Amino acid sequence: MVADLGAVEALVFDMFGTVVDWRTSVASGVEPFLDEYLSEADPHEFADLWRAEYQPSMERVRSGSRPFVRLDVLHRENLETVIERFGVDPRAISDDVLEEVNLCWHRLDPWPDAVAGLARLKQRHIIAPLSNANVRLALDVAKRAGLPWDAILGAEVAAAYKPDPAAYLRTAEILGLDPEQVMMVAAHNSDLAAAARVGLRTAFVRRPTEHGPGQTVDLVPEGPWDVVAEDFEDLADQLTR
Amino acid sequence: MVADLGAVEALVFDMFGTVVDWRTSVASGVEPFLDEYLSEADPHEFADLWRAEYQPSMERVRSGSRPFVRLDVLHRENLETVIERFGVDPRAISDDVLEEVNLCWHRLDPWPDAVAGLARLKQRHIIAPLSNANVRLALDVAKRAGLPWDAILGAEVAAAYKPDPAAYLRTAEILGLDPEQVMMVAAHNSDLAAAARVGLRTAFVRRPTEHGPGQTVDLVPEGPWDVVAEDFEDLADQLTR
Repeated sequence: MVADLGAVEALVFDMFGTVVDWRTSVASGVEPFLDEYLSEADPHEFADLWRAEYQPSMERVRSGSRPFVRLDVLHRENLETVIERFGVDPRAISDDVLEEVNLCWHRLDPWPDAVAGLARLKQRHIIAPLSNANVRLALDVAKRAGLPWDAILGAEVAAAYKPDPAAYLRTAEILGLDPEQVMMVAAHNSDLAAAARVGLRTAFVRRPTEHGPGQTVDLVPEGPWDVVAEDFEDLADQLTR
Repeated sequence: MVADLGAVEALVFDMFGTVVDWRTSVASGVEPFLDEYLSEADPHEFADLWRAEYQPSMERVRSGSRPFVRLDVLHRENLETVIERFGVDPRAISDDVLEEVNLCWHRLDPWPDAVAGLARLKQRHIIAPLSNANVRLALDVAKRAGLPWDAILGAEVAAAYKPDPAAYLRTAEILGLDPEQVMMVAAHNSDLAAAARVGLRTAFVRRPTEHGPGQTVDLVPEGPWDVVAEDFEDLADQLTR
């Protein structure tokens, strides 16, 4: 199976859940805010509720019912939605405070294997995020964590949110590559399915605690992915064999 | 003067001439091709003629007479124009050979101070190219030379060629910054003038041999630029004072 992956020149990575542990990072990031404004809220529950608005908010862009806006804008709108759900009017909270809370998505910690694995993968491949994050968000996460990307690609550069086929195809085109020369690396079967449908290669990386200790989704590969890896070090082992 | 530059969060760099010595690199890159197909051509003259088509070809995009195409496409068209000028029909040369010659723009060597200077500048600032190069060209140059960019920005991401104001303003917007929080670093007065007109800060870096030993342009700053530096190490000295 590895043999026919020799044509792969670029590895593009889902970010939230695949490269970084968004749930733990956001829960820890919102804690001081919750203490002051929403003392009954549990930080992990708050992080989950905030993240639950992620797909519906992008769907409004994907369906064409609103023009493309970057993820920072959607995160901010979704933050206000979640605050309202706790019975608090977000307009009673200062804009500066909300903006600061929103920035916790720019300070996500990588999984322990991510930096070392990426450094190894970078030796033979172009590596870049193909995330729904906007450029500044992905850049801030990378700069803080030391993720050694060759470029920051993704939804904002492609002006399309995954799993819209345009997000994958425009990224390959920007890289000057055919789809089969690009491998999508993700902890999510749905992302890989969408990438495979338009011709990209696929690598599933297990992240069994992305959603906490009781995770029930994406525990196993659910498609004929080209590679299945335990983490980025294992991915580097398999791709550099 | 340095005091009011504290608000600058990102340094964006012109690439051809400012970060890399395109003339020496292209002259050396085209030599085997010239030996085989255009033996009477001088490599440095060929590099100069190829580069001379650069602004006119982008002007057709800037003026709206053709839609945006990436620089790789313009370089390839311009290569054929220059070959014709030597009385050779480029259609008599195989596509693979022309494509390989075109790729010499992806293998440009940095000025000796560039990598070390950028590594220092990266500690306090976001650093990214704001070049007319397309993403893959800038990425290949960076990966080969070890340029430690935080992101690859520029004409392709902004879908506009400098000095179109959109190239500067969209780059600032993607970075989530106001124009005055972004400093354009360039060895070309015209680039800095265009950046300053839309509110960016400016740093002039002297590159007195970009055009060879007889260079007559851009030897001195020709505007009230915020910083004037001898090279990237000097720029780092001045910005981290």
